Amino acid sequence: MKGSVVTDTATLVSPVAPRALGVRRPLAVPAVRITPSARLGAWQARNAAATIPHCIGQLEEAGNLDNFRRVIGESDAQWRGFWFADSDVYKTIEAVAWEIARTGTHAFDSWLDDVIALVGRVQEADGYVMTWIQGVHPEKKFAELDWTHEMYVLGHLVQAAVALDRAAGRGDLLDIAVRFVDLVDRTFGPGADQVGYCGHPELETALVELYRHTGEDRFLALARHQIDHRGSGLLKVGGLGARYFQDHATVRESRAAVGHAVRQLYLNAGVTDLVLEGGDDELLDAMRDQWDSAHHRKMYLTGAFGSRHRDEAFGDDYELPSDRAYAETCATIADLHWNWRMYLAEGGSRYGDVIERELYNALAASLDETGTRFFYSNPLQLRPDRYSEENAPRERTPWYACACCPPNIARVFAQLGAYVASVDGDALALHQYTGVEVDLPVELGGGAVTVHTSYPDDGRVEISGPAGVKLRLRIPAWAAGATIDGAAVSPAADGYAEVVLGGGTLVLDLPLGARWTSPNHRIDAVRGCLALERGPVVYCVEEADLPEGVQLADTLVDPTRTPGEADGALEIGLITRTPDGVLYGPISTSTTGEAVAVRAIPFHTWGNRASGAMRVWLPSA
Amino acid sequence: MKGSVVTDTATLVSPVAPRALGVRRPLAVPAVRITPSARLGAWQARNAAATIPHCIGQLEEAGNLDNFRRVIGESDAQWRGFWFADSDVYKTIEAVAWEIARTGTHAFDSWLDDVIALVGRVQEADGYVMTWIQGVHPEKKFAELDWTHEMYVLGHLVQAAVALDRAAGRGDLLDIAVRFVDLVDRTFGPGADQVGYCGHPELETALVELYRHTGEDRFLALARHQIDHRGSGLLKVGGLGARYFQDHATVRESRAAVGHAVRQLYLNAGVTDLVLEGGDDELLDAMRDQWDSAHHRKMYLTGAFGSRHRDEAFGDDYELPSDRAYAETCATIADLHWNWRMYLAEGGSRYGDVIERELYNALAASLDETGTRFFYSNPLQLRPDRYSEENAPRERTPWYACACCPPNIARVFAQLGAYVASVDGDALALHQYTGVEVDLPVELGGGAVTVHTSYPDDGRVEISGPAGVKLRLRIPAWAAGATIDGAAVSPAADGYAEVVLGGGTLVLDLPLGARWTSPNHRIDAVRGCLALERGPVVYCVEEADLPEGVQLADTLVDPTRTPGEADGALEIGLITRTPDGVLYGPISTSTTGEAVAVRAIPFHTWGNRASGAMRVWLPSA
Repeated sequence: MKGSVVTDTATLVSPVAPRALGVRRPLAVPAVRITPSARLGAWQARNAAATIPHCIGQLEEAGNLDNFRRVIGESDAQWRGFWFADSDVYKTIEAVAWEIARTGTHAFDSWLDDVIALVGRVQEADGYVMTWIQGVHPEKKFAELDWTHEMYVLGHLVQAAVALDRAAGRGDLLDIAVRFVDLVDRTFGPGADQVGYCGHPELETALVELYRHTGEDRFLALARHQIDHRGSGLLKVGGLGARYFQDHATVRESRAAVGHAVRQLYLNAGVTDLVLEGGDDELLDAMRDQWDSAHHRKMYLTGAFGSRHRDEAFGDDYELPSDRAYAETCATIADLHWNWRMYLAEGGSRYGDVIERELYNALAASLDETGTRFFYSNPLQLRPDRYSEENAPRERTPWYACACCPPNIARVFAQLGAYVASVDGDALALHQYTGVEVDLPVELGGGAVTVHTSYPDDGRVEISGPAGVKLRLRIPAWAAGATIDGAAVSPAADGYAEVVLGGGTLVLDLPLGARWTSPNHRIDAVRGCLALERGPVVYCVEEADLPEGVQLADTLVDPTRTPGEADGALEIGLITRTPDGVLYGPISTSTTGEAVAVRAIPFHTWGNRASGAMRVWLPSA
Repeated sequence: MKGSVVTDTATLVSPVAPRALGVRRPLAVPAVRITPSARLGAWQARNAAATIPHCIGQLEEAGNLDNFRRVIGESDAQWRGFWFADSDVYKTIEAVAWEIARTGTHAFDSWLDDVIALVGRVQEADGYVMTWIQGVHPEKKFAELDWTHEMYVLGHLVQAAVALDRAAGRGDLLDIAVRFVDLVDRTFGPGADQVGYCGHPELETALVELYRHTGEDRFLALARHQIDHRGSGLLKVGGLGARYFQDHATVRESRAAVGHAVRQLYLNAGVTDLVLEGGDDELLDAMRDQWDSAHHRKMYLTGAFGSRHRDEAFGDDYELPSDRAYAETCATIADLHWNWRMYLAEGGSRYGDVIERELYNALAASLDETGTRFFYSNPLQLRPDRYSEENAPRERTPWYACACCPPNIARVFAQLGAYVASVDGDALALHQYTGVEVDLPVELGGGAVTVHTSYPDDGRVEISGPAGVKLRLRIPAWAAGATIDGAAVSPAADGYAEVVLGGGTLVLDLPLGARWTSPNHRIDAVRGCLALERGPVVYCVEEADLPEGVQLADTLVDPTRTPGEADGALEIGLITRTPDGVLYGPISTSTTGEAVAVRAIPFHTWGNRASGAMRVWLPSA
């Protein structure tokens, strides 16, 4: 795969391989080899060694595979899980596919053989395959698109199939996927006598990728057909309203991120895919408005989305409660996917900035050190009396009744290389800083660029490669004072600093001092609070690090005290307050007690000790 | 009814008529005649003229009565509404009953005749009557106590029946109710071979009242049986957990208000009823802990409860978001009922304080000036971009699919007199200040005490009555500086000031100056904010009162500027801020713009003009 030609999209082993090539072009996953000792590389290694095998085991244990077997009489188990549980199987296959792309492993081959053959046996003659419908509610086949998730499940099947064909040249799952897509096309496509789209967007982005992979226009046409018709109110409105599944307005009209966060963000990924393949300016304009809504008014500091438990929804503008943050892991992953497509569509460092925020915070926090326990919901605050809820436990758990997140985590870690570097015109663009070796495509002269760094622990990034190679380096918005070879950087308008390698080693230095971050004054939930950040990493304080008898709820941070380094953590100053028994009273003049020095730890490492209180946003003195 | 003998509970026309009489004894509703021109009296008049007739009309329009008719072939309508819709009929009957008690009206007699006869025809031979089960799901009869609400519906039937017999001496509905109770007793009572209690508490308090009214011990025993067994985990746990319906722990063990707020509070009313009829100290102790939890850690400033939409639940301690306050009207009513029982159990002005807070804020805000449009959810903040949700519309609506609140409002306004005054030992206790004439029971010497006041607009309360009558006057916690006949009051330990009438007019003066209220520092949602109160009334600011172009989200209150009276409203000073496009950034040093004078209006009058932003808690400069 070295020196892969990016203009040959059919062979570009990447999650996103646009046909309509612009200035910005992805690289193949195997062409971006992250160093195993680097932070991102270690996460990928853990993913391969622990998370993917864990998911494979859970698919058996939780009944997902028995759900297939029972349809064809190979199991007498009861149907188990949520009705869209097939998608967990496909996401796990996709994770395996990117792992094959990344390392060439054959460790999962026999599992793939078994599972793909099983799916093939379950597929009906007309192409249909969804075990809950087939095995429990056949009468609902294509009859309740608002809730059945049939096309959502198909979307994940298509993504897995495309990934597997790209990564391993294995087309058996792709044949299955195409047969199901053909059925949807015949039933609800441009030539059919009825329009239909899924209550849960996801098929749209998958269809565009299927078009890219196969070159067959009808898949692109079907994606466009579904996106054009969405918002015509075809989905039956339930108690959660039409916004819940983005059917309240057309994609062109809908300029605010609303409703179920994962649905909105997968939809936006699909719409942006359409834009990349020749969509019109109006669609891109709608996506820009959506992006502003989601990222300038509705994003948590950790790169998480969704403020409400009731309908897993984006809240109102600036409604960002730390305690009741739903902040579903899948929403962060969906947003990461969308941001990558937005970057490809129009460039700009803000997209890499968001992806970096998501990687090191919401996404990294969603699993533990072993890679086998997960958060579904990722709140920024835990109170001591909070009891565990189904989707928002106090501690990470090995699996969920609705297990959408764990295999989603597995596939995104396996495909991480895709988001680290790419081609930008005549330059190699570096988006994420990590130890990595990047094969240069032939149009950039071939050879490889190598990055050495212990980022984000340290801000020193050493880059070497053939002399004359032009680099475009993302300068994060937080990195005021960044230097290249000791000279202050002056990024271009798009936030990337351009530099030409001289043959030796270039040093990018990103200032990684701890900094206090303040919320927009319209965010009611964290008014009067500050958060601690260091580079891309958001910190938090856990009760476990407080002196005996001091409650986190009764402390104020002293921002005048400079945070100190403390063995992977930061030491900050807190001032204790006397608790007050009265809920509401006159303006208080009393306040503060003694000052204590306390460790703040990276947010992504929270919840690994005693399950006490936790806060990202700290009330400020 | 003049000079009614309070020791004769069988004839005490009051919602709560304890048999085990303690020092504190209720008065009959007709013995407490609120002046029609007083605030509370005007609300009662509106209730009689508008709200009750509106409810009666809606019961027909929304299908509640057809639900009965169709069971016996008198209608071919489809079943409509939520499965517990029968309870809306019973609550409306109860409202009518208290209206009869209050005024002796016969305006509703023929409606009562028709409806009670209808219920009687629908009742099965074994005593069962619940139209959703009978007419839609007969197989669920007593089979799914976690969700069916059968005993909840029965509880409202019993309360209506007792009220009607007390108010009008009309026992036909009581006969129906007792037959259904007998069935429950045979099926799940102390002598039955199975235990059963309802997913939605409510029957418990009704059963104790039925015991009080009839003197039959088996009703008390059944109430005790259900309360003793609750928390044994008999209810099938769904996705919302056992806390949702208070089945996670026994009543004795459960010391924090958790789960569905209305359920917890109705349950607590029933438990406190049991305490009043000779329950043990452990139960009372549990209720005290529950009370502290609900009122010192989980109550909104407006006297509302329930922080979460997902499960209509109390949140964690200090989890009190203004924007996502569920704050269901029924929870406030349930808490009012519980507080009255807690007062009877142990005295103390804090209970009257809470009732007053609820009356003038959450409850008063739940309907509009016409008395025919209602809020189900009563948030303390509305953002400009918030869209209407099923149970949390931007504006009051005439009815709801789940219409529990409107008839609940109707019954509580009709019975208000019960909470205004009572006997406390050898004194008449005044709990709520309003124009009123109170008949003194014979043991206090007979005659009447009269109160003249335009409270809460004015703090002057003139009280007259026979010389030698001892009064106990609740001094609200906020009323520092209150005087009686010009002398500073020094209330007793229970918060009531004792005084003996001299034959002339006594003047209680409650200082009604506007005051700024600060939240406990543990309430994250309103940190850095102040609320404006005047006497018992909480104020808010609506966007409609801001200068053109100024958004409420971009203002700070200036608490150093003394609020001024402004024609029923208060004028306060706000300082404008420049909006910031960045969601998170460095600690800002910029801030404020110009100072503007703005009207703050009583919270209970919000939402009657253009549907713009609203805030109770105002960020403070």
